Amino acid sequence: MAVSEFNLIQRYFSAQQLTSSVNRLGIGDDCALMSIPAGYELAITTDTMVEGVHFFAGAEPGALGHKLLAVNLSDLAAMGAKPVSVSLALTLPSVDEEWLGAFSKGFLALARDFSVDLIGGDTTAGPLTLTVNALGLIPEGQALKRSGAKVGDLIFVTGKLGEAGLGLKINTGYDCMSPVAALSQFNRPNPRVKEGLAIREYASACIDLSDGLASDLKHIAEKSSVSAKIDWDSLPLSEEVSAYIEATNDWALPLSAGDDYELCFTVSPENIASINIECTQVGVIEEGAGLKVLRLGVIEDLKVNGFEHFST
Amino acid sequence: MAVSEFNLIQRYFSAQQLTSSVNRLGIGDDCALMSIPAGYELAITTDTMVEGVHFFAGAEPGALGHKLLAVNLSDLAAMGAKPVSVSLALTLPSVDEEWLGAFSKGFLALARDFSVDLIGGDTTAGPLTLTVNALGLIPEGQALKRSGAKVGDLIFVTGKLGEAGLGLKINTGYDCMSPVAALSQFNRPNPRVKEGLAIREYASACIDLSDGLASDLKHIAEKSSVSAKIDWDSLPLSEEVSAYIEATNDWALPLSAGDDYELCFTVSPENIASINIECTQVGVIEEGAGLKVLRLGVIEDLKVNGFEHFST
Repeated sequence: MAVSEFNLIQRYFSAQQLTSSVNRLGIGDDCALMSIPAGYELAITTDTMVEGVHFFAGAEPGALGHKLLAVNLSDLAAMGAKPVSVSLALTLPSVDEEWLGAFSKGFLALARDFSVDLIGGDTTAGPLTLTVNALGLIPEGQALKRSGAKVGDLIFVTGKLGEAGLGLKINTGYDCMSPVAALSQFNRPNPRVKEGLAIREYASACIDLSDGLASDLKHIAEKSSVSAKIDWDSLPLSEEVSAYIEATNDWALPLSAGDDYELCFTVSPENIASINIECTQVGVIEEGAGLKVLRLGVIEDLKVNGFEHFST
Repeated sequence: MAVSEFNLIQRYFSAQQLTSSVNRLGIGDDCALMSIPAGYELAITTDTMVEGVHFFAGAEPGALGHKLLAVNLSDLAAMGAKPVSVSLALTLPSVDEEWLGAFSKGFLALARDFSVDLIGGDTTAGPLTLTVNALGLIPEGQALKRSGAKVGDLIFVTGKLGEAGLGLKINTGYDCMSPVAALSQFNRPNPRVKEGLAIREYASACIDLSDGLASDLKHIAEKSSVSAKIDWDSLPLSEEVSAYIEATNDWALPLSAGDDYELCFTVSPENIASINIECTQVGVIEEGAGLKVLRLGVIEDLKVNGFEHFST
C-alpha cells in the first residue's frame, strides 16, 4: 500500500489526544481551533531547523525531534508563557519509517512532558527541513520582553554556559573526559519553561540563549537602550568547559557558543530577594550601548560573535 | 557590510506596522503577542511550499510570495475564519536581495489586502523552503468543519474548477489560446476569505480545494460519514478548460487537478435561500461512503487522484 501523505501524518502524529481544554480541535480539518481563556494573551513563536545547517546529516532522529520542539518551547519560556500547542511542518526527502518513528517519539515525549498538544502541521517532500510554530498563554500584560532592562538591574542566567558549545566540539572531534552532560545539552536541551513562569513576577527583561550569551544579551541591551557588562569570572561553567578553556585558551566559548537554551534575564536590585529559581548573576546593566566584559581585571568592549545565518 | 540574518528580516519584513488591535507585539522579541477578543476562537493553520515540489525552480518570487500566503489564508477561509496574523519561516539558499524584494512585495501586498499582520518568523540558510503559520478569528462555536455534511445536503463550489490545473499545463507546454486567467489562478490564487465568512451562517461543512475537488470532497465525505455524488455536467468550467477537455478528452482535470483554492461547501435544502455568494451546485450528499460521479448518463465510482506527496 502506498504510504500517502495523509497516512503518514496519521500514523505517527495524529493519534495524539488533545489534553488541554484550550485546544478545541486538532489535526484533521483545514485549521485547528483554540479557545483562549479570558485574561490571557497568546504568545506565538516559530523556529526552523535545516539539515546541514542546524544539525548534521544523519543526526539521531529522536534527539532531533526533542531539540526541534525544545528550541520553540524555549522561546515561549523566555516570554514567561505556558506552552499549550504546536504545529509541525515536516519536509522530508523520503518516507523513512524508522526515522519517522524515532523522530516522532522524541518530539511527542517532550510534548507530553510539558502538556503540549500537537494540533496541526504539514508534511511535504523535499530537503530535510523542520519548522515548528508554538503557542503559549500569558496573563494579559505580564509577558517578559527584551525591552524592560533598566540601568542598575542585575543580569542572571539559568544553568551553565557553553555546555552545548562544548557538545558541538566533542561531536566534531574534541576529546573530553566526561562528555555526557555537554552532549546531552547539545542534543537534547531542556527548555526552561518552569523558570520562565517563575521569574515572570520579578524579572524586568528576558531572552533565551540560542545564539550565545553575548549575541542574545546584546538584543536585550539594544531593545532596552542600555549597555550590559559581563563579569567573566562569574560565568557558571561546568568542570568540563573549564578544562576545555584551560586546554585551549578559548575563553570566549561561554560567551559566543549558541544552543544552550538557558534563560538570560535581568532583575532590579529591589527584586533580588524574590528570586526563587537556581541561577547565577553574570553582570549588570549600565548606561550607554553595547556589551563589555570584565576579565583578568580589565574591562573590554565585547564584539558579538554569535551564530548568524548568511553573515559573511 | 554583512547582511546578517537579523538585518535581512528587518529590511524586508519588519518595517510593517501592526494594523490589527488583536496583535499586541510583532517581530523583534522571543515571541509575538496576541489578545483574542472575548467570544472568539482562534483558527490555526500551517502550509509549506518547497522548490521543485510545489513550485518550479526559478518561479517568479512575487507570485511565490502571494501564493504562499494565499494557500494559508485559503485554509482559514475554509474554516470561516477572519485572518489576523501570520508567521513566515523562510529557508533560503543565499541572500538574493532582488529575489527577497520581489518575494516580500508579493507576500506583503496580499497581507495588506486582507489586513493581515506579519507578526514573526525565522530566516535560515538551506534549500528553498517556505512555511507560513496563519491565525484567524471565528465567533465561538461557528467554525466550518469538514464533518458537518448531512444526507440530502447540496454541494457547492466557488469560482471555476481546473483553472490552476490548466495553468500548470500551460506552464509545461500546453498551447492555450487565452492563457491569462488560468495562469493567474495557478500563480496568484485569490483566497476566498470573504466567501468563507459569508457562508459561515448557513453552510454545514466546508473545505478549500488544494488537492482537487475529488480528493478534497472525499475528506468531507469521510469526516461526515456520508458519500458525495458529483454531477460532471454541472461543474463550472471556463471556456479554456472546456476547450482543453474537448481537445484532449482529459475530462477528469476539473476533478483531480489541485491548486484552485476555491471553496467546496455543503448546504442543507432548507438553507439554500440563504446563499449570498456566487457559487455553483455540483452535487449532492448521499448515504454511504466514497465518491460517485454522474457523467454521460452513467454513475461511476470515482477514484481519487489528488496530489499526495510520497504516494507511490
